[in-house]
Amino acid sequence: MKILCNKTDLLNSVNIALRAVPSKTTMSILECIVIQAENERIKLTANDMELAIDSFVKGDVLEAGKAAIDAKIFSEIIRKLPDNEVSITVNDNYEMTIVCEKAKFKLSGKPCDEFPSLPLIERNACVKLSQFTLKEVIRQTVFSIADSETNKIMTGELFEISQDELKVVSLDGHRISIRKIKLKESYNPVKIIVPGKTLNEISKVIPSDIDKEVFLYFTDKHIVCEFDQTTVVSRLIEGEYYKIDQMLSNDYETKIKINKKEFLSCIDRANLLVKESEKKPIVINIADDQIELSMTSSLGSMKEEISVVKEGKDILIGFNPKFLMDALRVVDDEEVDIYLFNPKAPCFIKDKEESYIYLILPVNFNAGVN
Amino acid sequence: MKILCNKTDLLNSVNIALRAVPSKTTMSILECIVIQAENERIKLTANDMELAIDSFVKGDVLEAGKAAIDAKIFSEIIRKLPDNEVSITVNDNYEMTIVCEKAKFKLSGKPCDEFPSLPLIERNACVKLSQFTLKEVIRQTVFSIADSETNKIMTGELFEISQDELKVVSLDGHRISIRKIKLKESYNPVKIIVPGKTLNEISKVIPSDIDKEVFLYFTDKHIVCEFDQTTVVSRLIEGEYYKIDQMLSNDYETKIKINKKEFLSCIDRANLLVKESEKKPIVINIADDQIELSMTSSLGSMKEEISVVKEGKDILIGFNPKFLMDALRVVDDEEVDIYLFNPKAPCFIKDKEESYIYLILPVNFNAGVN
Repeated sequence: MKILCNKTDLLNSVNIALRAVPSKTTMSILECIVIQAENERIKLTANDMELAIDSFVKGDVLEAGKAAIDAKIFSEIIRKLPDNEVSITVNDNYEMTIVCEKAKFKLSGKPCDEFPSLPLIERNACVKLSQFTLKEVIRQTVFSIADSETNKIMTGELFEISQDELKVVSLDGHRISIRKIKLKESYNPVKIIVPGKTLNEISKVIPSDIDKEVFLYFTDKHIVCEFDQTTVVSRLIEGEYYKIDQMLSNDYETKIKINKKEFLSCIDRANLLVKESEKKPIVINIADDQIELSMTSSLGSMKEEISVVKEGKDILIGFNPKFLMDALRVVDDEEVDIYLFNPKAPCFIKDKEESYIYLILPVNFNAGVN
Repeated sequence: MKILCNKTDLLNSVNIALRAVPSKTTMSILECIVIQAENERIKLTANDMELAIDSFVKGDVLEAGKAAIDAKIFSEIIRKLPDNEVSITVNDNYEMTIVCEKAKFKLSGKPCDEFPSLPLIERNACVKLSQFTLKEVIRQTVFSIADSETNKIMTGELFEISQDELKVVSLDGHRISIRKIKLKESYNPVKIIVPGKTLNEISKVIPSDIDKEVFLYFTDKHIVCEFDQTTVVSRLIEGEYYKIDQMLSNDYETKIKINKKEFLSCIDRANLLVKESEKKPIVINIADDQIELSMTSSLGSMKEEISVVKEGKDILIGFNPKFLMDALRVVDDEEVDIYLFNPKAPCFIKDKEESYIYLILPVNFNAGVN
């Protein structure tokens, strides 16, 4: 194999492929990136058995061929080369020579026989949305997936398409995040669970270009995400997602409209008093057109008032401050509406059109102490 | 105690004082910052028993007093307050109330009786230099102190003043860094060893203002460094510093002039092949007007040539690449002169005026393998 390409282009593709190189694995071949040169195309591939990425590089193929090379050392070398043309040659013994200006590296490559090949996926119906929109919707929901593997379904997100609407849902047992996106066209119904890890990696490699599109393809077992020179293929999580509609409600006893930034900064300050070992709630006392937030822990106590526009009853309710902050941080509105029912029922942060709904369960607290 | 001050001013001072709060200590009082309000001055003090910092804050003292408060939670709260006036009150039970706009925090403070007081230091002869110069000279030398406490003297830097010259020296057994600075005035001779930790902290809190001065005072046991609203007092390391003059030499068999950036990038690339467990040297082969750098490790091999201007004999010599990089990174010249004697003798990177001298010992290598 012999290829010529530009250092910057190569580095971009290497950085994208790197996202699918597992940090820990018992199969040492997965620590490699496969470089494949054929038909005038240079393709870099990495695969962690759940997620696989193909990334194409512009360049010249002087001699076709393929080889696997340790991803870590290869990417570090490419990163530190001068900004100029890079030549990569692999001989029959899989010895790789990288030359750029006067720098010349030799590394030991490997044959690709053991490298798992990407599943062949029939590209049927393709769903299009802008790179920016996909990146945003991931950011706005992925924080509320569950970390633990004890409930596999909670580690993924529901992607549900019906007609011209994409609904993305994540939940972890304490909260639910829902985002709805209007698509430009109507599609056949899709209902899949995409692993959170895949979504995190996709949002890291996708550029946030509002004018460029991402193409999504679905099968029963896989999702394919194509953009620019890159293809990401991921396994789906099998199973049935939670029926979230029955957890939602439009009933409320109290509704407040509050300045988001002011509310968020206040919770952020209260959160300073939370110790890992204590998990104290922030207590919100809504009375008249004012809410009082308070927190008491072994570190100290705080109290702060914020003016709000209130409809309905007064209420005293406690929350995990982190959950409120996670949701408020990804809402772009200057003012948010919060709907409450009673101190044992979830609150809803949502807009009128329900383009976003953040449900958060309250926590018990000892009202006497606070 | 009751004080009023601006959040930004207070935060600046807290951040400076924090540098002297030990990260680990058995004396819990040292985890505190002492706030002292008297005579219309607000002073924050921290002390880790080797290094102590006083930092003054502009503000109003409504009621004199003093109290110690946990540095971590206090600094975090101040950081997150709105940018506005902060009022701090401490009552007779050392309960502290911090109010800023509508936010109100209560923390438990402590009496200051157990807090070690700063040594009283007679401020005799004062040495002046610009903040920028002191910060730079630390950066340019502190990387070659020894980490280990087995040889206490090597963990500090020699500060030697004679007439109008300040000489700063650090060494770790493998290399020596020397910087000489012309002062504006002449001073009585000084020869002290300042702990590297102190210098690191000073360089972090000192602004890099070329027009503002730092005032240094010395005693047998302490150095005092004053700038802006801050006083840093540090113990010195006791003992006699190494006689470095006898390790220096002006003799050389080979001298090369090389482009610093090119040389540094090349070593940086070679260094990618160094594994923690192997410690392979970079081999430099100087022949005619060219040097060839090479590195071979279990990860692979590299070779690269750089054009140089050479005087004297050809030479083949090996170095720890990190030591060369550390020195080259802090030299501002576009081209550097390197003086060599033989493959067992140190090399010297220095300018004509010897305003800087970096001595680096070579390492043995198996010439046959390379």
